Amino acid sequence: MLFNEYYTAENHGPYELFALGDFKLTSGQTLEKAQLAYSVYGELNEDRSNAILFTIMFSGTSKNMAHYIGPGKALDPEKYCIILPNQLGNGISSSPHNTDGEQAMENFPQLSIADDVIAQHQLLTEKFKLTQLQLVTGWSMGAQQTLEWAIRYPEMVKRAAPIAGTAQCTPHNSLYVDVFSEALSSDPQFNQGAYTSAHSCEAGLKRLAHVFALMGVCPEFYKQQQWQRLGFESQQACMKNFWEAWFKPMDPNALLCMAHKWQTGDSSVLANGSLEQALKGITAKTFMIAFAQDMFVPPADMAYEQQFIPHSEIKIVPSLMGHFAMLGLFEEDFAAIDGLFAELLSH
Amino acid sequence: MLFNEYYTAENHGPYELFALGDFKLTSGQTLEKAQLAYSVYGELNEDRSNAILFTIMFSGTSKNMAHYIGPGKALDPEKYCIILPNQLGNGISSSPHNTDGEQAMENFPQLSIADDVIAQHQLLTEKFKLTQLQLVTGWSMGAQQTLEWAIRYPEMVKRAAPIAGTAQCTPHNSLYVDVFSEALSSDPQFNQGAYTSAHSCEAGLKRLAHVFALMGVCPEFYKQQQWQRLGFESQQACMKNFWEAWFKPMDPNALLCMAHKWQTGDSSVLANGSLEQALKGITAKTFMIAFAQDMFVPPADMAYEQQFIPHSEIKIVPSLMGHFAMLGLFEEDFAAIDGLFAELLSH
Repeated sequence: MLFNEYYTAENHGPYELFALGDFKLTSGQTLEKAQLAYSVYGELNEDRSNAILFTIMFSGTSKNMAHYIGPGKALDPEKYCIILPNQLGNGISSSPHNTDGEQAMENFPQLSIADDVIAQHQLLTEKFKLTQLQLVTGWSMGAQQTLEWAIRYPEMVKRAAPIAGTAQCTPHNSLYVDVFSEALSSDPQFNQGAYTSAHSCEAGLKRLAHVFALMGVCPEFYKQQQWQRLGFESQQACMKNFWEAWFKPMDPNALLCMAHKWQTGDSSVLANGSLEQALKGITAKTFMIAFAQDMFVPPADMAYEQQFIPHSEIKIVPSLMGHFAMLGLFEEDFAAIDGLFAELLSH
Repeated sequence: MLFNEYYTAENHGPYELFALGDFKLTSGQTLEKAQLAYSVYGELNEDRSNAILFTIMFSGTSKNMAHYIGPGKALDPEKYCIILPNQLGNGISSSPHNTDGEQAMENFPQLSIADDVIAQHQLLTEKFKLTQLQLVTGWSMGAQQTLEWAIRYPEMVKRAAPIAGTAQCTPHNSLYVDVFSEALSSDPQFNQGAYTSAHSCEAGLKRLAHVFALMGVCPEFYKQQQWQRLGFESQQACMKNFWEAWFKPMDPNALLCMAHKWQTGDSSVLANGSLEQALKGITAKTFMIAFAQDMFVPPADMAYEQQFIPHSEIKIVPSLMGHFAMLGLFEEDFAAIDGLFAELLSH
C-alpha cells in the first residue's frame, strides 16, 4: 500500500465503503476483498422509490459531482436519495495503490465499465434494497456507466441521462486515451506501475495534464481567453493551477486503471456485439446530453447512438468549456445541465 | 554531424543548395555558413515573370509537395517555374544534425518563420533575380511562410494561397505544439538534444506520431474506417505504416527546431504587434484555403484572419483527412486544391 494523502476522506469525503467481497470480474479474474466507496445525499423514502444514481468520470470522485446536488436544484436531496458510487480503481474504491498483497500496484487486475456497473448493482440491491432508479446519470466515463446500466438492467432504470459519453468507445476516443496514457506511462519514474513513491511521476502527470488542456476545452476557449472566467490571469496560470493542479496529486496506476476501462468500454457485448441491438433494448426515457464543442465526444458520436435508443432525445449544450462544461464552472453550463435534469425528471 | 540516411538526395532530391553565408537571424544571432536547399520545376521565362514559390510544412521536404506539380495540373512546369524552398532546420537545409562545430545539434540557434522567408527572399532575388511571384503558397507551416511573404514583401507577391495555417499561431495551436514536442523531448534518449545516435529516440518519435494521428485527421476518419482508402487493413496498420513510419526516420532536433518556428510564428510584429494592420497590408489576391474538419487550424481561425485581408476569399475544402487533406491521398482533395490553384492563377 502506497499512502497518498490526496485520496482521503478529508479531501473527498464523506463516503462509505461497501464490501463487495471477492468480486468476480467480467474478465474472469477476481478482485479480492473489493470495496466500493460511495456517497449518499438525501434519504430513501418508505417504498424506496426516490433513488437516483450519479456515476463518476475519469480521475474524479463522488465529491466532484456534488455541486449538482442541493436544495432548489433538480437533484434535490429533500426529494431524492442520490447515490454517487466511486469507480473501482479511482483511488478511493479498491485501487492499485490502496491494495495490499498480490493485487497491489502493477498487479492490480484490469477492470471494465461492466465491472463497475455490476458492483454498483450489488450495492444498490443488497445494501439499499432498490428495485428502481428514478434516474441514472453520469458524465464522460459516467455516461459509459449510465448506458451500461440502461442496457444491462433496463427494468431498474426509469430515466437515463448519459452526458458526453457513449456506450461504445469510438476509435478516435480510444486514440485519445492512448495519447494521454503514453504521456504518463512514458515517465521513467512510472517503472511500469511499480513506483515506490506516491508522487514520483510528476513529469508524466504534467504531460497528461497538457493533453487534457489540449482537448478538454475547445480552441475558442483559449482564443477568447476564457480562462479569465475561471479566475486566471494567463493561459500559463490556467495550465499550472487548473490542469496540472488537477492531475498532479493523483495516482498514476489509478488513472491508467480507469483509462483502460474508458478505452475498452463497449456495452454492445450485451447484445452479441450489436451496438444497435444493445441500444434498442433501453427502456428508460433517455436524454443523451452532448456538449457542442466537445473534442472528446463530438455531438455526432452521441447522435449516432441516440438514434437507436427508443424513448430518447439528444440535447446539445453549447459551451466553450467543451467536454469540461460538466464542471459547471460557467454559470450557464450548470444552469443548462441542471435544467435538463429537471426536465427529464418531470417526465 | 550525425549522419541520418533519411535526409539524402536519394530520398528527397533532386535539390540544390544555396549558400546564405553567415545568415543574420531575426533573433540577432547568426546562423553560420547557412545553406538553403531548394527544388525547381520548370524554367523561368525571359522576363522572369512566371515564378511560383511553394513553401513547405512541418516535418516535410520539397519532395512532399511535388505531387501538385506536373503537366496538366494548375502548377504546370511547362508554364511556370515553381521553386520549393526547404525550411531551415528541416534536415536538408542547414539543420542541427548536419551542422558541425559550435552550432551543431543542441546548440543550433532557434529560428523563426521570418528567418525562413528572409532566406527565401535572398534566394529568389540574388540567385533567380526575381522581382515578382505569380503565386506564393504553402500548407500549414507553409501557410505561415506564405502570409509572412505577403505581409513582408507585398510588392513581390501577386497572389497568395495560404493553406491551413495562420499568420499568428493561435493559443490552441501553440498548445498542440507543446503536446507533441513533449511527447518527443520526454524520451530519455533525447538527452536535451545531445543524442549521439541518429535513431535513438524511436520511442519519443512514435509518441509524437500518435499525437499527429489524434488531431491530424478527424474523428470521423477513424469511425468510417477511412484508412481503408489509404490502403490499410486496420487502424493499427495505419498507425504503424502511415503515422509512425512518417516520423520514425526523422531527426528529433530538426522536428523541434521547426516546432519552435511553428509555435512562435507571428507576422503581426511587422505592424508593431497589430495582426489586423499586418493583414490589411497584404496586396496579393489571396485565397485562404481551410479544411473543414481541420483540428490543427479550424476554418474559424483562418476566417478570422481572412476578414482583414483586402483582396481575399476564404475557400473551405471538406475532407475527413482534416489537416492532412493536403497530402492529396484522397483524389477529391487533390482535385479541390488543384482546382483552387487554377482558379486563383486565372485571376
